[in-house]
Amino acid sequence: MDDGGGGSSKRWRFALPNPAVTAASEKSVLRYLLDLHGCLDERGPRPVIPLSHGDPSSAPSFRVAPEVVEAVTSALRSGEFNGYPSPATGLAARRAIAEYLSLDLPYKLSPDDIILTSGGTQAIETVMSVLGQPGLNILLPKPGYPKHEAHAIFHKMEVRHYDLVPERGWEVDLEAVEALADENTVAIVITNPNNPCGSVYTYEHLAKIADTANKLGILVISDEVYGHLVYGSTPFVPMGVFGEVVPVLTIGAISKRWAVPGWRLGWIATCDPKGILKETKVSHSLRSFGMLTTDPATFVEGAIPRIMKNTNDEFFSKTVNLLKETAEICYDEIKEMKCIICPNKPEGSFFLMVKLDVSQLTDISDDVDFCRKLAKEESVMLLPGTALGMENWLRITFATEPPKLKQGLERLKYFCQRHQSQNN
Amino acid sequence: MDDGGGGSSKRWRFALPNPAVTAASEKSVLRYLLDLHGCLDERGPRPVIPLSHGDPSSAPSFRVAPEVVEAVTSALRSGEFNGYPSPATGLAARRAIAEYLSLDLPYKLSPDDIILTSGGTQAIETVMSVLGQPGLNILLPKPGYPKHEAHAIFHKMEVRHYDLVPERGWEVDLEAVEALADENTVAIVITNPNNPCGSVYTYEHLAKIADTANKLGILVISDEVYGHLVYGSTPFVPMGVFGEVVPVLTIGAISKRWAVPGWRLGWIATCDPKGILKETKVSHSLRSFGMLTTDPATFVEGAIPRIMKNTNDEFFSKTVNLLKETAEICYDEIKEMKCIICPNKPEGSFFLMVKLDVSQLTDISDDVDFCRKLAKEESVMLLPGTALGMENWLRITFATEPPKLKQGLERLKYFCQRHQSQNN
Ligand SMILES: Cc1ncc(COP(=O)(O)O)c(C=O)c1O
Ligand SMILES: Cc1ncc(COP(=O)(O)O)c(C=O)c1O
Repeated sequence: MDDGGGGSSKRWRFALPNPAVTAASEKSVLRYLLDLHGCLDERGPRPVIPLSHGDPSSAPSFRVAPEVVEAVTSALRSGEFNGYPSPATGLAARRAIAEYLSLDLPYKLSPDDIILTSGGTQAIETVMSVLGQPGLNILLPKPGYPKHEAHAIFHKMEVRHYDLVPERGWEVDLEAVEALADENTVAIVITNPNNPCGSVYTYEHLAKIADTANKLGILVISDEVYGHLVYGSTPFVPMGVFGEVVPVLTIGAISKRWAVPGWRLGWIATCDPKGILKETKVSHSLRSFGMLTTDPATFVEGAIPRIMKNTNDEFFSKTVNLLKETAEICYDEIKEMKCIICPNKPEGSFFLMVKLDVSQLTDISDDVDFCRKLAKEESVMLLPGTALGMENWLRITFATEPPKLKQGLERLKYFCQRHQSQNN
Repeated sequence: MDDGGGGSSKRWRFALPNPAVTAASEKSVLRYLLDLHGCLDERGPRPVIPLSHGDPSSAPSFRVAPEVVEAVTSALRSGEFNGYPSPATGLAARRAIAEYLSLDLPYKLSPDDIILTSGGTQAIETVMSVLGQPGLNILLPKPGYPKHEAHAIFHKMEVRHYDLVPERGWEVDLEAVEALADENTVAIVITNPNNPCGSVYTYEHLAKIADTANKLGILVISDEVYGHLVYGSTPFVPMGVFGEVVPVLTIGAISKRWAVPGWRLGWIATCDPKGILKETKVSHSLRSFGMLTTDPATFVEGAIPRIMKNTNDEFFSKTVNLLKETAEICYDEIKEMKCIICPNKPEGSFFLMVKLDVSQLTDISDDVDFCRKLAKEESVMLLPGTALGMENWLRITFATEPPKLKQGLERLKYFCQRHQSQNN
């Protein structure tokens, strides 16, 4: 009998690559990051400066407030939250999040409007799992956060990209949205404050998005994982404010504002004062699906009421002030670099999206090549725009200590100068 | 313009219930448990005794060892594990789990054989996501753990049930397995130690399962979330022992053995010394898919090396001794009940699967009705077999303090006596 080893894999019936998995995993940012890690010169004399990750937690200045850590450790030590969440634990956490979100809305969310998830990631997984069906399509921004696309693809939706327009502060190209939608379109995804663009949408622009979605009869999925991280002239307005115009699924998490993406606590909020998501059974489907998938850690869930109540305002304002400072450092330094063009000063989240003029550089074929060589030669990591659907762009993260950020940008400048073509 | 409220849901394009979600969520145990919660008489004089949940954590005698809590709190307090997991953090956790599992295998697993998941649940989600394609089928046990079926269905696989045979200690009916499989079968799922049957498979039986799977060219998914929780005459043998015969995907978690299902830490292990899962790209697909989905909390992941190293053997033996005691209490009490038949004394996990003879009872139509009335009248919760694919059976959990368990069984006995039909 064939022993199943060696070249005999044909006899195994599971030797089928799943095309949905293959297609979805092409959208993985982690793949690009791991590739960059591989390019680093580990024995290089200088410490690595990662300006590529959406993770503020490693910078001491952004570290989560001690009262928040205390809320989780005491939940853990109590021994009350080692098991699956009791209905009471879930209710208390959902109520705390409903109250937190309602502060910025013209109506009140109820605990039943909240579905707890393991971070913003699982919120995206759940929304796409519930909406996704072959034959349907969804409108996603370009550039965009790749997990939106990965999970939409994995759940067999056709993805249609609308542009964010750099010349208009990365606003949604609403004419394109109208042209892209058809009778099989179910939703438009927006990210506000925006990753990767660092933009924040005005009240007026959000109102227009709501009107467009209402006209098209599609729902709005608003990824607000960077909610409240704004430091420009545009205040943060949650999309849920327009819940009367169009039903909104808001995706959120404590990951970014509290600088704890490793804690894995997020949510989906149904912002739907008219009850359309109830009527169309979307709310019910989200809850049913949630019962089948994994939960956040119970003791983090158990700590949420205290986290929401006890986090000091000073912690939030310190973070935002620091981001304002590092955004400015980043913007000012980039302006000095010939081969990099920055269309907009960031006002929210902690990213700068910049255009690379490869024609000015020798030996650099594109953004991926740029980032790989930068990692190798300067131990600085940036994310190639290709990972976000924008070839020859770069995303720079500035949620870092100012001195470290300056050093990283200095190295980037030398790198650009060194590779500057003589013809320019 | 139509305002979108009221009866106008037809104008919303997302008003489509997703049939995959509907079908999957019918397999939710939580649905049955919530229904039972609703039946409880909240103002009843006696405390509720839940013998329905697979969660030992609420019983003080099963509480996780303090050194394990300490490992997690110190990871949390260090501030090193607030962010997304670094490659080093992931590697250390995967290495610790590979070493832990290798203790019981005739070969060594490497860290690359381990994929970390948010509990056993996410391990199941990931495996089914990667294997699931329309047109393929998978063999699942009846009775079985419903999430296997829910996620297989959600990912469009056809589910074919093979029987576990109560008269043969709930062994797999291997003839049925051979008859069910065809060229579109990709895998067989087994659960060992078994939920809901409390059975533990012998080395010889596992060897036969491996031979059958090899012959059919399908892989074995072995859910060993209850690994090491055995207290009868049959020792626990991981399926991976037969990895030379057939490739095995082992699903595990710290949820049950450490009594911390709320901590959400599990794994998939590729037990595949011949490299067939590598060759057939299954390993690669699992890893790729893992990059798109949520992770366990980083500080739990960071604590894993210490948890695996520091957990006192006494903690494990205390748990197992207590389960041996409560299994016996449960088995002995049930024997006294006329309308309930227990085919086998449990040897592993913490469940007893018993047959209900409804014909002996008045006013009770079936197992669901039995459990609802039991909840209402006696404040005792059992899981109806229907939730596990076995109508007119019941699953009783005995991971509870002995006095509380006795009380619960006492109430169950009164309930049965009260509803005993006069004709019998
Ligand atoms: C726009 C956006 N949405 C969602 C997420 C995922 O959030 P989480 O880390 O909480 O899973 C991220 C993470 O970077 C993000 O940038
Ligand atoms: C057989 C089986 N597999 C998997 C799981 C899920 O494990 P976890 O709680 O770690 O997600 C359970 C939980 O009850 C189970 O009984």
